[in-house]
Amino acid sequence: MASSSNNTLSSFNFDMPFANLKPVLEKLQAIDVANSSSQPLIPEELLTISKDNPLLTFQFEEYLVMKAKQVNKSLDEALPLQHPVKIHEAMRYSLLAGGKRVRPILCIASCELVGGDESLAMPMACAVEMIHTASLIHDDLPCMDNDDLRRGMPTNHKAFGEETAVLAGDALLCLAFEHIAFRTRNVSPDRVVRAIAELSSAIGSQGLVAGQIMDLESEGKEVSLSELEYIHVHKTAKLLEACLVCGAIMGGGNDADIERVRKYARCIGLLFQVVDDILDVTKSSKELGKTAGKDLVSNKATYPKLMGIEKAKKFASDLMIQAVQELAYFDAARATPLYHLAYYIANREN
Amino acid sequence: MASSSNNTLSSFNFDMPFANLKPVLEKLQAIDVANSSSQPLIPEELLTISKDNPLLTFQFEEYLVMKAKQVNKSLDEALPLQHPVKIHEAMRYSLLAGGKRVRPILCIASCELVGGDESLAMPMACAVEMIHTASLIHDDLPCMDNDDLRRGMPTNHKAFGEETAVLAGDALLCLAFEHIAFRTRNVSPDRVVRAIAELSSAIGSQGLVAGQIMDLESEGKEVSLSELEYIHVHKTAKLLEACLVCGAIMGGGNDADIERVRKYARCIGLLFQVVDDILDVTKSSKELGKTAGKDLVSNKATYPKLMGIEKAKKFASDLMIQAVQELAYFDAARATPLYHLAYYIANREN
Repeated sequence: MASSSNNTLSSFNFDMPFANLKPVLEKLQAIDVANSSSQPLIPEELLTISKDNPLLTFQFEEYLVMKAKQVNKSLDEALPLQHPVKIHEAMRYSLLAGGKRVRPILCIASCELVGGDESLAMPMACAVEMIHTASLIHDDLPCMDNDDLRRGMPTNHKAFGEETAVLAGDALLCLAFEHIAFRTRNVSPDRVVRAIAELSSAIGSQGLVAGQIMDLESEGKEVSLSELEYIHVHKTAKLLEACLVCGAIMGGGNDADIERVRKYARCIGLLFQVVDDILDVTKSSKELGKTAGKDLVSNKATYPKLMGIEKAKKFASDLMIQAVQELAYFDAARATPLYHLAYYIANREN
Repeated sequence: MASSSNNTLSSFNFDMPFANLKPVLEKLQAIDVANSSSQPLIPEELLTISKDNPLLTFQFEEYLVMKAKQVNKSLDEALPLQHPVKIHEAMRYSLLAGGKRVRPILCIASCELVGGDESLAMPMACAVEMIHTASLIHDDLPCMDNDDLRRGMPTNHKAFGEETAVLAGDALLCLAFEHIAFRTRNVSPDRVVRAIAELSSAIGSQGLVAGQIMDLESEGKEVSLSELEYIHVHKTAKLLEACLVCGAIMGGGNDADIERVRKYARCIGLLFQVVDDILDVTKSSKELGKTAGKDLVSNKATYPKLMGIEKAKKFASDLMIQAVQELAYFDAARATPLYHLAYYIANREN
C-alpha cells in the first residue's frame, strides 16, 4: 500500500455521486495500515474492489428509500389528525413534509448494527424526527431565524400563525417522549430510561438549545473556529449522536458497542453541518428547498466563510474517513449501511 | 346525622381561612352516610372534632412551607448557572421566581400517600414544575397571551427577549424529562417509563397544548360550558392529574391506588381552574402578582362569567367535597396533607 498523506485525502472528490464508493475505497487503501495507530481500519475484504464487496454491491439508494418509507408510515400513524384539528394539522404539516429522514435512518441503522431488529428502534426513530421538526419550527419563527421557506414550503408559522407554530413545536417535543414511553416494545425499561436520558440531554440547554442560543448570539459578530464548532456540535451533532447512540441502546448493544457508535456519531454529526454550510454557498434556493446563502447574508459564521470552500471540503472528507474507521469493530455486513450513510452525508446535494 | 342536601353543601364558606377545617368537617358530617352510595366518605375518626383529629392538629401551613423549601432547593440544584449563561439565566429566572409549588407538592404528597419516601418523587416533582414554568413562559409570549407581568415580575420575554424565552421554554421541557430519567433513584425503570408516559401525554396535543390552542381559538367567541370545561381540563387539570398520578407511581402505589389518586386529581384539577377564574374577578393585580381581570377584558370564557360568581363558588365547593371523599380509601394520617391541599386549593387567595 502507498503511504498515507494528507494530499491523498484532500484530493477526495466531494461531488461524485454517493452510490459509487469505489474512489473512497481507493483512498482508504492508500492509508498506510502498517504505520498507522493501533485503531483498526476498514476490514481487508471491504477494501477489495470486487463484485462481492458488500460496500459495492449494497443498494444504498434502495435502502434509504425503503427505510424512509417505513419511517414515514410510522410517523403518519404516530400522529393521526384528531381533535383539536388545528394543532394536529400544524404538527402533521411539518412532520410529514418529507425531508430525507436522515436522523431516524441513523437510529435504525445503529440498532441493526448491534444486531437489533428495526422494530425495537422505530418509536425512538420517530421521536428523533419529531424533535428535529420541533426545533425547525421554533428556529424558523420571526423572533428566531425569521424564515419563510422550509423544504420548499411556507414555514409553519407562515401557514398556521405564530401562536400555533409555538404550540406545534412544544407538542412535537412532548409527543417524542410520549411515543418512546408508550410505543417501545421488547426493550427492557432500563434501556428505555437510558435512551430517554441520552436524547433529552442532547436537546436541552446543554445540547441543541445551547447551540441555538450561541448561534443567535453570534450573528453579526466575529466568530472563532472553536466558537463555530461549539455551535455546530450542539446545534446539529449532539442530536445526530443521540440518534445513533439511542439506536444502539434500543438494539441491545453493550457499553463498548455504544461508545464506538458514539465516536462514529461525533464525526458524522460535525460532517453533517460542514456539508450543510458548503451546500449553502454552492447551491440555489430551489435545489435546497430553503433560502440559500442566508447564512452568509446574515453574517453568520460558517465553515466555508472561516476556512474557505476547499479547506471545508477537505475537512468534510477527513471527518468521513475518521467515521468509517470506527465501523471496523462491527460485523461488516451489518455496518454496510452506516459506511454508506457516512459517505452519503458527505456527498448529499440538498 | 342530618340528611344530606345540596343546600348544606352550597352554604360552604368559600372565604374562610384555609387552616381551619372545622366547618368543612361539619359539612361532611352533615352528609347522610347511611343513605349515600357505596362510596366511603371521610373516616369516622376524622369526622370527630377533637384535639386528636389529624385533620385539625396537622400544621398544614408549616407543611407547605417545608415542602416548598425542599422543592426550591432541589430546583436550584437541578439547574445550575452554567455555560451558555444567558439561556440558564433565563430558565432560572422563571423557574426560581417563587410560586406556590402546588404541583410538586401534590406529586410528593401523593407519593407519601401510597407509602413512598419523598426522595422517590423529588425528581418528578421538579420536572412538573419545569414543565409548568415552560408552559407559562410560552403562554406569556407576544404571539400568545402577550403578558408583561408574571408573579409580580416582568415576563421572561420582557426580561430576556423573545427568542431566548422561546428557547428557555423548550429547554425547560427537555430538562424535565432529562431530570426524571437521570435523577430518579430507587424506583424500578418500568415505573419511571410509566410515569414519563403519563406526564408527556398530559402536556402534549391531547393535553396541555390542546387546552392552550382551544383557549386561544375561543378568544372573542361565545363559549359553551362544555367547551370551557374542555379548555380547563386540558390546560390545567391534566397536568395536576399527572403530578398526583406520577407521585403515586414513583411512590410504589398499586393500580387501584393510582386510579383513586386519579379520581381525586380530576376534581382538584378542575377546582384549581375554577378558583383561578374566581380570583381573577375578585382580586387586584397586586394581590395576584399578575394582570388581573385580563380574562374578562379579552372576552375569555371563565366560570364566573358563564355561571355567575356565586354558582362558581358552589361548584368549587362541590368539587372539593368530591375530591376528599376519594381519600377515604387511604391511611388517614398519610392522606391528611391531601385533605388539606384540596381545601387549600379551594380557598387560596392568589
